[in-house]
Amino acid sequence: MTTKTPKDSLVIMTELVMPDHCNMLFNLMGGRMMHWMDVVAAIAAQRHANSLVVTASVDTISFTEPIKLGNVVTLQAKVTRAFNTSMEIHIEVWAEDVPEKRKFLSNTAFFTFVALDKQGNKVIVPEVEPETDVEKELYETALQRRQMRLLVAGKIKPDQAHSLKDLFGLKD
Amino acid sequence: MTTKTPKDSLVIMTELVMPDHCNMLFNLMGGRMMHWMDVVAAIAAQRHANSLVVTASVDTISFTEPIKLGNVVTLQAKVTRAFNTSMEIHIEVWAEDVPEKRKFLSNTAFFTFVALDKQGNKVIVPEVEPETDVEKELYETALQRRQMRLLVAGKIKPDQAHSLKDLFGLKD
Amino acid sequence: MTTKTPKDSLVIMTELVMPDHCNMLFNLMGGRMMHWMDVVAAIAAQRHANSLVVTASVDTISFTEPIKLGNVVTLQAKVTRAFNTSMEIHIEVWAEDVPEKRKFLSNTAFFTFVALDKQGNKVIVPEVEPETDVEKELYETALQRRQMRLLVAGKIKPDQAHSLKDLFGLKD
Amino acid sequence: MTTKTPKDSLVIMTELVMPDHCNMLFNLMGGRMMHWMDVVAAIAAQRHANSLVVTASVDTISFTEPIKLGNVVTLQAKVTRAFNTSMEIHIEVWAEDVPEKRKFLSNTAFFTFVALDKQGNKVIVPEVEPETDVEKELYETALQRRQMRLLVAGKIKPDQAHSLKDLFGLKD
Amino acid sequence: MTTKTPKDSLVIMTELVMPDHCNMLFNLMGGRMMHWMDVVAAIAAQRHANSLVVTASVDTISFTEPIKLGNVVTLQAKVTRAFNTSMEIHIEVWAEDVPEKRKFLSNTAFFTFVALDKQGNKVIVPEVEPETDVEKELYETALQRRQMRLLVAGKIKPDQAHSLKDLFGLKD
Amino acid sequence: MTTKTPKDSLVIMTELVMPDHCNMLFNLMGGRMMHWMDVVAAIAAQRHANSLVVTASVDTISFTEPIKLGNVVTLQAKVTRAFNTSMEIHIEVWAEDVPEKRKFLSNTAFFTFVALDKQGNKVIVPEVEPETDVEKELYETALQRRQMRLLVAGKIKPDQAHSLKDLFGLKD
Repeated sequence: MTTKTPKDSLVIMTELVMPDHCNMLFNLMGGRMMHWMDVVAAIAAQRHANSLVVTASVDTISFTEPIKLGNVVTLQAKVTRAFNTSMEIHIEVWAEDVPEKRKFLSNTAFFTFVALDKQGNKVIVPEVEPETDVEKELYETALQRRQMRLLVAGKIKPDQAHSLKDLFGLKD
Repeated sequence: MTTKTPKDSLVIMTELVMPDHCNMLFNLMGGRMMHWMDVVAAIAAQRHANSLVVTASVDTISFTEPIKLGNVVTLQAKVTRAFNTSMEIHIEVWAEDVPEKRKFLSNTAFFTFVALDKQGNKVIVPEVEPETDVEKELYETALQRRQMRLLVAGKIKPDQAHSLKDLFGLKD
Repeated sequence: MTTKTPKDSLVIMTELVMPDHCNMLFNLMGGRMMHWMDVVAAIAAQRHANSLVVTASVDTISFTEPIKLGNVVTLQAKVTRAFNTSMEIHIEVWAEDVPEKRKFLSNTAFFTFVALDKQGNKVIVPEVEPETDVEKELYETALQRRQMRLLVAGKIKPDQAHSLKDLFGLKD
Repeated sequence: MTTKTPKDSLVIMTELVMPDHCNMLFNLMGGRMMHWMDVVAAIAAQRHANSLVVTASVDTISFTEPIKLGNVVTLQAKVTRAFNTSMEIHIEVWAEDVPEKRKFLSNTAFFTFVALDKQGNKVIVPEVEPETDVEKELYETALQRRQMRLLVAGKIKPDQAHSLKDLFGLKD
Repeated sequence: MTTKTPKDSLVIMTELVMPDHCNMLFNLMGGRMMHWMDVVAAIAAQRHANSLVVTASVDTISFTEPIKLGNVVTLQAKVTRAFNTSMEIHIEVWAEDVPEKRKFLSNTAFFTFVALDKQGNKVIVPEVEPETDVEKELYETALQRRQMRLLVAGKIKPDQAHSLKDLFGLKD
Repeated sequence: MTTKTPKDSLVIMTELVMPDHCNMLFNLMGGRMMHWMDVVAAIAAQRHANSLVVTASVDTISFTEPIKLGNVVTLQAKVTRAFNTSMEIHIEVWAEDVPEKRKFLSNTAFFTFVALDKQGNKVIVPEVEPETDVEKELYETALQRRQMRLLVAGKIKPDQAHSLKDLFGLKD
C-alpha cells in the first residue's frame, strides 16, 4: 500500500451562517459548528482511506469569540497521521465578516476516524507522508495526542504515556 | 475602485450527501443542489463586492446523472464579470464516490447577484480582471449570456441582442 | 396511450416563509425557493407520467423583489408539453403579504423532468392536449425553449435551432 | 365589516414525503403531518382575518393508514365559522401514491386560530358566509365542536353545553 | 404477560426553542410543538410495549400563551392505560424562561398509539398498573376519553357512549 | 449568592434517531450527537446560572459503537463545578434499542460554558455544592480537567499544571 500526503485528503468546506444555524442571540450554535467539523473531517478521512469511515473521537475544542448570523465559515481538514486502521484529522475553522473585511481563526480541532469496509470491519489505511513544516510537526505530535486520548479513555495507564511525559519536562 | 481577479472571489464548498438531502430514491434532490449552488455563489459574490448580495437570476442548469446518498459534492464558484452593480458567478459542481474512486462533473451554472448596502440600495462593484485562459473566455462570453437573460426577461428586443446573433453565425 | 390535459397535472403548493427559509436579512433564500419549485414541478410531472421522475433541467429564473419572513408563497405547476420521455413544466410563484393585502407574481420558470420506471429506465409519457389559450401558447413555444436548452447544452448546433431563429426575425 | 366565504380562505398545500419527514419505518411521522396541518390552517386563518394569527386549539385527529416515503400529501384548509376574534378551520388531508394511481383521505381535522394585531391584541374577524351544502353543515356543527372544546378545557360546565346534548339525543 | 407501571414508560424530553422552531413572531410554532409531543409520546409507548408503535390519534390540544425564542420546553410523557393493542399516553408540556426564573404549564395532551411487530401486525401490550393518585385518576378517566374518540371517529353511536353520559350528569 | 446542587441543574433530553439524523449507513452522525450534547449542556448551564450562556470548550469525546436509526438516545447533563464565571457540565449519553430491550452507555463528555448578561458581559455564577459520591468525585477532579484544558489551550505552562502531575504519579 502506497503512502499519501496530507494534501491528498485536503477538504475545504464553506458555509454561510443562516438563521437555522443560530441560537437565540443569532450567533452560530457550538453544536452546529461541531456538526460541520464532523462532516468535513469525515470527508478528509474518506479521501485518505478510500473507504467508509466513522468518528472515533474528538479532542478538546475551544470556542473563542461568537460567530454571527451572516458570517462566512470556512473549514479546512486534512489527515495528519494514520495509525493502522485509524486516522487523525486536523481541522481549522475560520470565520469571516465579508462586508467588514474581518476574518479570524475561530477554532482548531483534532478528530479521529476509523476506516471500515462495507461489512463494517476495520480496514488498514495508507501511511501519511507529511510534506510541509506544519504537516511534519502535526505528524510528530500526533503520537502525543494519541496517548492523551488513550489515557483519557482509560485504555493505557499514565506510566505508559511516554510521549506525554515530555510535555511535563520529565525523563521517561 | 480597484479591480479584482476571479481568484479573489473563489469559494469551495464540500458537502456529503445525507438522507435529508435525498428524494425517495435516495438520490440528491435537484432542488437541494440548487440551494447549495445559491449559497456558494452568494459567498463568491460577497467576496467580490464586500457587501450584502441578493440573487438576481439563475441561468439554465442541466442535470445529468444521479448523485447518490453518501457521495461527496464539491461546488466551486467564482465571479466571471461585473456589470456595474451586478456580478455573474460561474459554478462547477463535482460529484464523487470516494470509496469507488469515481468523480464526475455534475453541472456547471451561471448565477447573477446584485450588491446592496445595508439600506438595500444597489452599490457599484469592482471590475473583474481575468487571469487564466478559462477566466478570459468566461469574461468574454459573459456579455452574450447577459443578453440572453435580458432577452428572456423581456428587457431587450431580439434586434438589440448583438452578441447573441453571432451565436447563429449572422452578421449584425 | 391516451393524452392528458395540463389541468390533469396541476399542483398547487403553499408555503409560509419561516425563519429557517431565510437569509441574514430575513428574506427568503433564492435557493430555498428553487427547492420548492423543484418539488412542485416534480409532483406535476409525476401526475402527468404516473411514474417516478427526475429533474433534467431548469431554465433561466429571474428574481425580482425580495420575499419577506411571514409572507405566503404559492407555487402553481403544470405540464406544458411532453417530448417522448421528458416533460416541460411551467411554474408560477406568487408572494403575498396577507395582512397588508399585497400579492405579486414573483417568478415564472420552466423545469424539465424525465420519467423513469422502477429500474431507472426512461418511459414514454402521454401527449399533452392544451385547453386554454395560455396553455396553447405555452405548448407552441415549448419547442423553441427546448431548442434553446439543447443549444446551451451543446447537443444541437446553432443552425439546427430552427425555432430560435424566428426569435431573431430571420428566415430559416 | 363585510363577511367572507369559506372559499375566500381556501388554501391548498402539496408536499412530497421525503426521507427527513419519515420515521424509522420510512412512513410519514404523525408529528410532521400535524406541523403541515398547522401551517396550512394558519394561512387559511390569515386569509380570512387579514392579520397575524396564532394556534388556539387542535381538535381530535385520527391517523388511519400509513403514508409512505415518496407519497404526495395534499392538504386543503378553509375557515368554517368565525367566533368574534377566533376562527375554526377545517382541514382535509389526502395521501396519494401517484405511480400506483392510489389516493385516499388520510385525515380531517379542525384547528382554531385567534387573530392578533401587531401588538398582540386580539382583533375581530369577518363573519363567515357558507355557500355549499358541505360548508353550511360545517358552519352549523361548528357551535357543537366549540362547546366540546370549552367543555374539555374546563371553561364551561356540562349543563351549559346545550349543543352537545343533542349529540346524545336528549332534550335540553 | 406482566403489567407495567406508568413510571416504567416515563420519558422526559427537553428542548431549547431556536430560530428554526419559530414563526415570524419568533414564537414557537404550534406545529413544531405537536411534532415534539408526537416524538416523546412515541418513545413512551415504545417503552411500554417494547415494540414499534404508530400514532393512532391525538386528542384536543389547547395552546395558551406563546412560548418564545430561547425558552426551554420540557415534555413529560407516560402511558395511562392500555387497551389490548393500543395505549393512551399523557403528555405535559412546560415552558420556562430560565434567566427570568419563570415557568408555566403550557399544555397537556393525550395521544394514542398502536403497537406493531416488524411485519406491521398489531401486538398485545402489557396492562397498566397505576401507582400514584394522579395516575389512578388518569387510568379511570381513560375509558371516557376513549369513548369520546370512538364517538368522534363515528365508530360507536352516542347511546353506546356510557361513560360520556356521566359527563352530562345523566343516568345511563 | 447562594450555592446550588448539581441536581438543581439536571436536564434530561430524549431523542428518537430519525433518518435526518443519520449518515449514509443510517447510523447517528457523530456531529448530530455533539449538537444534542451542546443543547442539553447549555440548558443545564442556564439552569445553574439563570442567565444566558455560551459554549467555551468541549473536552475529548470518544465514540464507541454505532447508534442506529430508530434507537432512543437519552442525554443527561448536570453542572459539576463552577469557576467564577464558567461552569463545567458533565453529560452522559445512553443509547437504547427499545424493542430489543438493549441499552448501553454511548458516551460521557465534559463541556464548559460561560455565563453572560444581556449585554454579553461575563457574570459570576453560584458555587456548586455536590451531594452524591459521584458528584463529589466529579467536583474534585474538575480542577484537573480544567488544567488540562488550559494547558491544551496554551493558557498555562506544563509546570503550572499541578493537578495533572498527580495523574502521572509524580510529586509536584
